[in-house]
Amino acid sequence: MDPHALTRELHVKNDSKIVMLIADGLGGLPMTPGGKTELETAKKPNLDALAKIGVQGASIPVIPGIAPGSGPGHLGLFGYDPVKYLIGRGALEATGIGFAMHPGDVAARGNFCTLDAAGKISDRRAGRIPTEESAPLAVRLRQAKVPGYEIFVEPVKEHRFVVVFRGPGLAGNVKDTDPQATGVPPHRAEAHDTASKKTADVANQWIAPATKLLFGEKKASGLTLRGFAARPDLPSYEEVYGLKAAAIAVYPMYKGLAQLVGMEIIGKAQTLAEQMATLEANWSKYDFFFIHFKYTDSTGEDGNFDAKVKKIEELDAAIPRITALKPKVLIVTGDHSTPSYIKAHSWHPVPTLLVSDCCRPDGHATFGENTAIRGGLGQFKAKYLMTLALANAGRLSKYGA
Amino acid sequence: MDPHALTRELHVKNDSKIVMLIADGLGGLPMTPGGKTELETAKKPNLDALAKIGVQGASIPVIPGIAPGSGPGHLGLFGYDPVKYLIGRGALEATGIGFAMHPGDVAARGNFCTLDAAGKISDRRAGRIPTEESAPLAVRLRQAKVPGYEIFVEPVKEHRFVVVFRGPGLAGNVKDTDPQATGVPPHRAEAHDTASKKTADVANQWIAPATKLLFGEKKASGLTLRGFAARPDLPSYEEVYGLKAAAIAVYPMYKGLAQLVGMEIIGKAQTLAEQMATLEANWSKYDFFFIHFKYTDSTGEDGNFDAKVKKIEELDAAIPRITALKPKVLIVTGDHSTPSYIKAHSWHPVPTLLVSDCCRPDGHATFGENTAIRGGLGQFKAKYLMTLALANAGRLSKYGA
Repeated sequence: MDPHALTRELHVKNDSKIVMLIADGLGGLPMTPGGKTELETAKKPNLDALAKIGVQGASIPVIPGIAPGSGPGHLGLFGYDPVKYLIGRGALEATGIGFAMHPGDVAARGNFCTLDAAGKISDRRAGRIPTEESAPLAVRLRQAKVPGYEIFVEPVKEHRFVVVFRGPGLAGNVKDTDPQATGVPPHRAEAHDTASKKTADVANQWIAPATKLLFGEKKASGLTLRGFAARPDLPSYEEVYGLKAAAIAVYPMYKGLAQLVGMEIIGKAQTLAEQMATLEANWSKYDFFFIHFKYTDSTGEDGNFDAKVKKIEELDAAIPRITALKPKVLIVTGDHSTPSYIKAHSWHPVPTLLVSDCCRPDGHATFGENTAIRGGLGQFKAKYLMTLALANAGRLSKYGA
Repeated sequence: MDPHALTRELHVKNDSKIVMLIADGLGGLPMTPGGKTELETAKKPNLDALAKIGVQGASIPVIPGIAPGSGPGHLGLFGYDPVKYLIGRGALEATGIGFAMHPGDVAARGNFCTLDAAGKISDRRAGRIPTEESAPLAVRLRQAKVPGYEIFVEPVKEHRFVVVFRGPGLAGNVKDTDPQATGVPPHRAEAHDTASKKTADVANQWIAPATKLLFGEKKASGLTLRGFAARPDLPSYEEVYGLKAAAIAVYPMYKGLAQLVGMEIIGKAQTLAEQMATLEANWSKYDFFFIHFKYTDSTGEDGNFDAKVKKIEELDAAIPRITALKPKVLIVTGDHSTPSYIKAHSWHPVPTLLVSDCCRPDGHATFGENTAIRGGLGQFKAKYLMTLALANAGRLSKYGA
């Protein structure tokens, strides 16, 4: 069930403020059976105080058992069914470096590779060339042109870069030119469908001069393109919720995801304190604020239980600056779990806390995985969280008479 | 949401082992309000020990309120949406006696009936003829032939038998020949759609000589066919999960269901101890083991609360032989509830226990209905259990980047 089928019709406007604080990879696991999770271990007086007046639940990012990447994880929390709305690899890569794709753009991930004298691939990752060496080469590729089209090349990391094709008649269904093997030349770009023929054509017209620009380079003497994808067509927050929304994120990926659903990216915060300052400075200007906190995920991926606990405690310390603004609805959640035990994104339901004056408190005195699964919101698909947010903000009218 | 839409793409292989122990009709009810269920009454130290390190949930076989038969009950646990994948009556009957239907086969349930001198039905169930008398008659019906087609007749119980039609151009959409009334002759087989015309034709060509073979029989002087159904087209465990799967079941019905999803039927166990021996002997050869235990259902259907408790205790005693093999994931569940109080399959969610090193234990010290509904897996549709199994086995990659 697509929640937008209801919210699009039912949303109403008022002057309430909604804050969604996403602690990336928030959910965790005990390191030993019977132990506590990272969230349960952390000293978090402010979150626990909210638990007493709020309602908890366990959010299922996609369906039980599925661990999402950042793309589907955030889309779910934003209320976009992550199975319905797919962000292709190239589009996510472009989004991830903060490139603002326009409707109709097609992006692909680029890999530098090493070609031998016969033009065959000898190293698919160009000897894992360091970023300092590869970034100038990516910039050099901008000199390759195709008449009638704008082509953007952006460095990423090591052997990776992004290409975005802009111009008339492009679609994203094009096969990889990476043959996934050495000893053979890169494939030509080839369309999977007729709508994407132009894209394959433009890509091939670009690949030839681009490859020439790399001639004589020792490591990065060739390139392959993978994961062609058009900008996903996501309805905007304004359209489906009637919300003027802002994103306060440090990392490009999350700014990019927010932009895809029509949020404005505000501030240039590099720290949580700066994010709070951005929130305060822009409080009157938006209805909805998405605040992204990365470090609960990165410490989990490192398998560093204690560091993840510390990051949760840092996040807790920032809570009073949010509550001082008196949002009508405050939600604290994560896009998925990243247990230190697993060192990766996982499928485990994510502890979620919702506070509003009209939520139905569930009697828990602390915020954690074990209270969340016994919480008043139960276990619910992440895609329903925005509907709950709107309801608690008094921004949804009755369905039917 | 069809979980296969995700698992088909995301599954990866490793050397983990998954065991799904299905105690048929496991869920129960207290005999009086405030009492304990069969599972809660049973002394089951091994299951309770697993509860301490595992996570529980309540599995909803189809949707809340729907009591499934064995077919949809098991299909759900196997991850096949039981509303999407229907097994027609005839196909289930054939499956239930262990007949291995081929793709393209059409099966029907047969009833012996009594015809009067005018060819009109005087008893729709042939005086509930005993199996000893009816089975030889079913075998006799094999003499009736239709050119170009193979026709299999298998005895079932009392007045029932199964007919399977095999040959070119058959489909299952054919009306019953049983008029559901006495004083009228059996209907001719009639197709509901053009694709099934050949089946109706072949059935009528077979019914005439088959009925002649019964001429002069006192009770079973005629026959009717019901529930025509083609073999259901179920994708295999290998395709949707990448699992080499084995079934260790005593009763033909469960072997048949397992076969329909591509499991191999291993061993000839007649007792739980023999089933465990089969498991041990085949441990290295498969990724996934389905073990079926029938007696929690049959005692429930008998309304024998104490006997069901005993059967649960027997099952509990077998658990150490499974855990000794150190499966990566062990699941104990049922295909539906069969409360002794109701003496039938019921709709009540089924207590389900999942143990793996990366499950999130929910702090319960015992396995039962009341802990299951407060468990970390929450209430979930049975069709998501396999996705959880794969995730806990490390056999699913991340969805989206």
